[in-house]
Amino acid sequence: MELSENTAAIAALTVASDQYEDALAQNNIPVLDELFFDGPEAVRFGATENLFGAQEIAEFRRARTNGAPARRNTRREIVALGPDVGCVNIVFERLADGRIGRQSQTWLRTAHGWRIVSAHVSLLPK
Amino acid sequence: MELSENTAAIAALTVASDQYEDALAQNNIPVLDELFFDGPEAVRFGATENLFGAQEIAEFRRARTNGAPARRNTRREIVALGPDVGCVNIVFERLADGRIGRQSQTWLRTAHGWRIVSAHVSLLPK
Repeated sequence: MELSENTAAIAALTVASDQYEDALAQNNIPVLDELFFDGPEAVRFGATENLFGAQEIAEFRRARTNGAPARRNTRREIVALGPDVGCVNIVFERLADGRIGRQSQTWLRTAHGWRIVSAHVSLLPK
Repeated sequence: MELSENTAAIAALTVASDQYEDALAQNNIPVLDELFFDGPEAVRFGATENLFGAQEIAEFRRARTNGAPARRNTRREIVALGPDVGCVNIVFERLADGRIGRQSQTWLRTAHGWRIVSAHVSLLPK
């Protein structure tokens, strides 16, 4: 089967990614918490930190003043690796200084909905 | 089903990750090429570049003198999101300067074996 045939999963991932991006822009911590997989397997490599497990990720969000720096997404690629898993890769521009960043997420469809199991955010060197 | 129950996939991902790390250390380009998903959906965000599609990834490897900078992996977390998909997250130390890096990969089991569909490598700020 071709990856592009997973159209239902791609559509669902698009909705989930939009929801995450809106929550990130608003620093809506309950939604950001909810969209990450709630278990020790969750990983989030951020621009300045390595977080392992849902608890470390949730604590980081609460410690971060004003949430993520404002940004503009310039490219988003979504691929489904079957009906229940997919990757969302985004390139963005940080508004404050124009630096280019990248965000990679791998999502899993659970009984509670789509959840991020693995995430990696970084900035390209200046 | 708990993620930790996917023991066969975790074992296979461990073998595939070992194979990739060995090939990276030796700059074995044919093996590195082979282990990436051969299609336009493959994404690789590297320490200094954003690559979309298997062709851009293969061209990058050929243009890079001496391959990846030598490194020592200090942590590896592997999770399977079902029998055919999984994530490998690695923290490493770059030997030349001690900088800490992170490598995230999402693998898919294809008819030809396990392949990386999405990868993101970055260094933490100095």
